[in-house]
Amino acid sequence: MPVFDVSEYKERIRRTKESMQERGVDVLVVSQPANMNYLTGYDGWSFYVHQAVVVALDQEEPMWLGRGMDANGARLTTFLSQDNILEYADDYVQSLTKHPMHFIADVLKEKGWDRKRVGVEMDQFYFTHRNYVELEKSLPNATFVDANALVNWVRVVKSEAEITFLQRAGKIAERVVDTAVREINVGVRECDAAAEIARAQYRGTEEFAGDYPAIVPLMMAGEATSTPHLTWTERKYEADEAVLLELSGVYRHYHAPIARTIFLGSEPPKLMRETADVVLEGLEKTLEFVKPGVTAEQVEEAWRKAIAHSTVVKESRLGYSIGVNYPPDWGEQTISLRPGDKTVITENMVLHLIPGIWYKEVGFEVDATIRITPSGNESLYEYPIELITK
Amino acid sequence: MPVFDVSEYKERIRRTKESMQERGVDVLVVSQPANMNYLTGYDGWSFYVHQAVVVALDQEEPMWLGRGMDANGARLTTFLSQDNILEYADDYVQSLTKHPMHFIADVLKEKGWDRKRVGVEMDQFYFTHRNYVELEKSLPNATFVDANALVNWVRVVKSEAEITFLQRAGKIAERVVDTAVREINVGVRECDAAAEIARAQYRGTEEFAGDYPAIVPLMMAGEATSTPHLTWTERKYEADEAVLLELSGVYRHYHAPIARTIFLGSEPPKLMRETADVVLEGLEKTLEFVKPGVTAEQVEEAWRKAIAHSTVVKESRLGYSIGVNYPPDWGEQTISLRPGDKTVITENMVLHLIPGIWYKEVGFEVDATIRITPSGNESLYEYPIELITK
Repeated sequence: MPVFDVSEYKERIRRTKESMQERGVDVLVVSQPANMNYLTGYDGWSFYVHQAVVVALDQEEPMWLGRGMDANGARLTTFLSQDNILEYADDYVQSLTKHPMHFIADVLKEKGWDRKRVGVEMDQFYFTHRNYVELEKSLPNATFVDANALVNWVRVVKSEAEITFLQRAGKIAERVVDTAVREINVGVRECDAAAEIARAQYRGTEEFAGDYPAIVPLMMAGEATSTPHLTWTERKYEADEAVLLELSGVYRHYHAPIARTIFLGSEPPKLMRETADVVLEGLEKTLEFVKPGVTAEQVEEAWRKAIAHSTVVKESRLGYSIGVNYPPDWGEQTISLRPGDKTVITENMVLHLIPGIWYKEVGFEVDATIRITPSGNESLYEYPIELITK
Repeated sequence: MPVFDVSEYKERIRRTKESMQERGVDVLVVSQPANMNYLTGYDGWSFYVHQAVVVALDQEEPMWLGRGMDANGARLTTFLSQDNILEYADDYVQSLTKHPMHFIADVLKEKGWDRKRVGVEMDQFYFTHRNYVELEKSLPNATFVDANALVNWVRVVKSEAEITFLQRAGKIAERVVDTAVREINVGVRECDAAAEIARAQYRGTEEFAGDYPAIVPLMMAGEATSTPHLTWTERKYEADEAVLLELSGVYRHYHAPIARTIFLGSEPPKLMRETADVVLEGLEKTLEFVKPGVTAEQVEEAWRKAIAHSTVVKESRLGYSIGVNYPPDWGEQTISLRPGDKTVITENMVLHLIPGIWYKEVGFEVDATIRITPSGNESLYEYPIELITK
């Protein structure tokens, strides 16, 4: 029932256990939905209540622990045996007296793991401070270890099966951005364009269903182009304004983000044209540089050198690693393309380079989502890297 | 620029400060996106990085504290003065050495609030355990207070302006469920139906833009009807199967959820028909009971009595309070309709009653989203409470 072969999950679990050993973790409590999915296949919008996948060095299979009504969802979407799907009663949900972490602690006690080194994802959304407090209170003899991003780092190099999923997401991304360029016109309401974009995202292709993105369509027009994370209203697009788009194609929670800028007119303002020229050329040069063996910070350095002749300054990171994800973020929280990140880029990493520029008066966004090949990189989609005017 | 009158935000802040005084909180660090929006109008998909709205008893206006690139978003969507929009540099993002809570702690120090009683939302997603650890380390003289759901409880009674927004969401909900009933047919791919539903959600009405829901369309068919939180694939709907739908109309992040069950055939199985009869009648009777003065647990009791003659058992809570929200949940995390919740229901509360039943073989979902009126309640939308066959 899960979307990959069981052997794929087993390999992921093996590598996770290897990393646990290196970091001194005996039992890992995984709260991030993408990590839960990665290890077991679990796929439900149930992450608004506390739940976890638990991986232990001395047990072959992980366990899914969640709310009663979601247990059938775990049975339908994971490869786990019945014994490893454990459900808590509904009165644990948003209660002042009971907490789902008490249930999880009870399971750890029954397994004899309450004196072990327990890893938790300390800076992941979905692992709240109270989760920690209740776990610690319920397991006074355990030693807690920060296993933040442990599974995220296991995810960083993609398998061939994952690359196939990402390429499907790329095909969907082409349709999504085509739809956006077609539907965004002077006089059209932003919400109506957003509706067509979402439709394209969910529909996918004739062969493959699209999926919901971990970030909804970000689409800024007019004065909103000074910032990257706004959405849409009833407002109608006006002549001679720019529209920044950060969208994604998604297949089975695997993301191929695509960002472009549309100018609704034939004469973009001088600052935008000049910024676009610098950014487009800088991105092309950076892409020529990216290959196995270079480091994340060297990629950013290549970009900075490529735009050094101009007045364009990009203060935020140039990009990051992506793959499987759930709201609120499609970023993997592993590699960041910025000074100080010395991660060596290797084959089958997948990076999202997004040199977005947001000035007070005007913004410009373009991107590339690339898979690292043995000798360089290749885009997940075919779409020109350019400023679109219409 | 924010969507409500500034006076509305000021009243919300006044009531928040009142609650802070009651709970012994001098300075409140608000992390939940819906709470940030409620207090300031802030509306951006930036909650995948750490950010906060800070409310202090000794300062009139709250402060927005977030990532540099989102500060213009705060300027565009909130009523806050320039001085109260404070941004951190990009190298705080997902760093191993710096943390956005250091920035927030620095601001609190500069304000002279570092010996105060600091409230944090200890069990809200978006307030991670590490957020707490870093704040505590940076503010050794502060006393930390659990202010979990403090603002959520201020939100529980809706203003007239909010009721108007919720009624607009209700109008959108009617279109969303109409679309679903029209598009879900034998031979149609689930993803294509989901695409039309999302399109209707984002589009809204001729007058009002729709918005992205805090929960994507939940739509379970065939054996997936045994569980409530799955989505869609390429799978095609088959004859004589049930489809459970939990959808929502959304206006400016205010939600009117609507759940219905479609049976794709003229003869639903006996268990489903019988379950539907009991649940529909039980819901109608419960709605007759709900009015100001009764308690949350009495509402659930009325439901339980109404179905006591049958074999139907509903183990999970009957419903909860709703209003403004962001992913991952449209529930407000305040009132739960279940034994033990003694909250007295009052005018202009808005409740989502969803007596969903998920058996191993078959499920049934229906709901009502109601505003409490002076003498009873009224639905946010006009849509028959029935099992839909087609």
